[in-house]
Amino acid sequence: MEELHSLFYFLELAGTFAFAISGATAARKRNLDLFGICAIAFVVACGGGIIRDLCIGAIPPAGLTNWQYLVVALVAAGLTIHFFPVVQRLKRPVLFFDAVGLSLFAVTGAEKALHFGHNGEVAVLLGITTAVGGGVIRDILLTRVPVILEKEIYALAALIAALIVVLGNYFDWLSDDWVALIALTVCFTLRILALRFHWNLPTPGDTKTGPDK
Amino acid sequence: MEELHSLFYFLELAGTFAFAISGATAARKRNLDLFGICAIAFVVACGGGIIRDLCIGAIPPAGLTNWQYLVVALVAAGLTIHFFPVVQRLKRPVLFFDAVGLSLFAVTGAEKALHFGHNGEVAVLLGITTAVGGGVIRDILLTRVPVILEKEIYALAALIAALIVVLGNYFDWLSDDWVALIALTVCFTLRILALRFHWNLPTPGDTKTGPDK
Amino acid sequence: MEELHSLFYFLELAGTFAFAISGATAARKRNLDLFGICAIAFVVACGGGIIRDLCIGAIPPAGLTNWQYLVVALVAAGLTIHFFPVVQRLKRPVLFFDAVGLSLFAVTGAEKALHFGHNGEVAVLLGITTAVGGGVIRDILLTRVPVILEKEIYALAALIAALIVVLGNYFDWLSDDWVALIALTVCFTLRILALRFHWNLPTPGDTKTGPDK
Repeated sequence: MEELHSLFYFLELAGTFAFAISGATAARKRNLDLFGICAIAFVVACGGGIIRDLCIGAIPPAGLTNWQYLVVALVAAGLTIHFFPVVQRLKRPVLFFDAVGLSLFAVTGAEKALHFGHNGEVAVLLGITTAVGGGVIRDILLTRVPVILEKEIYALAALIAALIVVLGNYFDWLSDDWVALIALTVCFTLRILALRFHWNLPTPGDTKTGPDK
Repeated sequence: MEELHSLFYFLELAGTFAFAISGATAARKRNLDLFGICAIAFVVACGGGIIRDLCIGAIPPAGLTNWQYLVVALVAAGLTIHFFPVVQRLKRPVLFFDAVGLSLFAVTGAEKALHFGHNGEVAVLLGITTAVGGGVIRDILLTRVPVILEKEIYALAALIAALIVVLGNYFDWLSDDWVALIALTVCFTLRILALRFHWNLPTPGDTKTGPDK
Repeated sequence: MEELHSLFYFLELAGTFAFAISGATAARKRNLDLFGICAIAFVVACGGGIIRDLCIGAIPPAGLTNWQYLVVALVAAGLTIHFFPVVQRLKRPVLFFDAVGLSLFAVTGAEKALHFGHNGEVAVLLGITTAVGGGVIRDILLTRVPVILEKEIYALAALIAALIVVLGNYFDWLSDDWVALIALTVCFTLRILALRFHWNLPTPGDTKTGPDK
């Protein structure tokens, strides 16, 4: 991951921060104690990346070795606890950074898998895993059906970003940086549009009106 | 896994297909969206094998590299969505293929662990994991106590199949193929008989009549 | 792990035993069948260590290769099933051994990570993971919010023990054995005091009186 630009690096920490806030907020609402809130913030921020690193053989996982991720997650947890009423009202910025994190994690996840010499399918699957894994673990720990399986275009945006990275790497028409930028932009735009216009994937089992399940 | 016969390979894809259908059906009943149904179908079909591969050091896991598994899982999800009323009535064939998958995954899981040079205990534990892991993950994602921990002889059949593979490998009385065939047959027969005659393991905590818990 | 003293080894098996009893008791209360109880006993006893071993690259995980762990977990499950009314009354000894297990797993987890050449952050995070991982998996399988995220000082004690091991290794003032002993004692004492005096971490979201959530 070291060869990614410092802009990417900064954005990745911003994504970590946003994911950690979403974790800490959910944990805070369930009345977990201080340790629980910090643990869930860290797991949401780093869980997806840890699973990816286990699957590509990057031992030990970056989420466990780089103190920056831990510090960012703990700061996010601390801020969430301290400014909880503010954070709850800040729904829009949190969703914004969450979309940033989603896009970046999908792109860097797919890039890291390719960088370790794995094939395109691995890269796409692990790009999605990196992006949505933390959120799925959060929902498992809080015993609810993972939100990403039910609501709005989320994992699909990550899938598309990872796919762009893999196709860009395969056809090699553009430099890796351009491919990454395009993938980021598409994923981010798609997610923001989905949020604004409430785009959902079809729910085949819909007998009632879906979201109030 | 490459040295397993093409019959085995075909049967493994059939098992993958059956497991994916069981996942997609469960996800469809919980009103998940398109992505959610496909994701759960894939995870049920490949989750156990991915955990096994992580534990034996087969990086990246076969479930992530071989596109066949992904395609089979997606096709199964698509068919489940499209022909849902039919699939629901097809309970018997689905259970049949599920038993095929259970037997094959237990046998190939144990064989792969031995093939990577690990000892018999690892092979038995990972044979079971391969066979039941996907179903456990499915139930965790849908927030219910894993069915295999409560109902009918299921994991026990996988345990016996894996044990036969390990013992056969240890005593070396028969060729590996015969051992695999015997293990398959025993596991499959046991599972089908358990289904037909409702054999359950004793439930020590039974104060009420068990299944209506 | 082979270079740890035989006292440590005995205590680790005692911890495994205690964790397995806690798993089997919880599974028994949920009316799981024989296999389910044994599986959860094993997973609680060995789950944390297996995750640690995957993260540090100790393939295959010790919990899968060393038959002692499996036997201890199965014996614990058997005893729990057979003497269930007694085990329920034995709450104090179980909590005592659980605290022993917590301390030992935190210390040996951190030591093993350092021993594999990883840095202090990895050692602390995986020391905690080893100590509390099994309990978290138990609660996920039984679909409840992990107890350790809500109640009493538990993971914090493991964190402190792992931190002492890492600091001791870094400053190298004392022999590893002394550091381990100090870490064990601090963690164990803290946990026992927390149990006796009902020390909890603050729960920022507390609107009601916490534990009756």
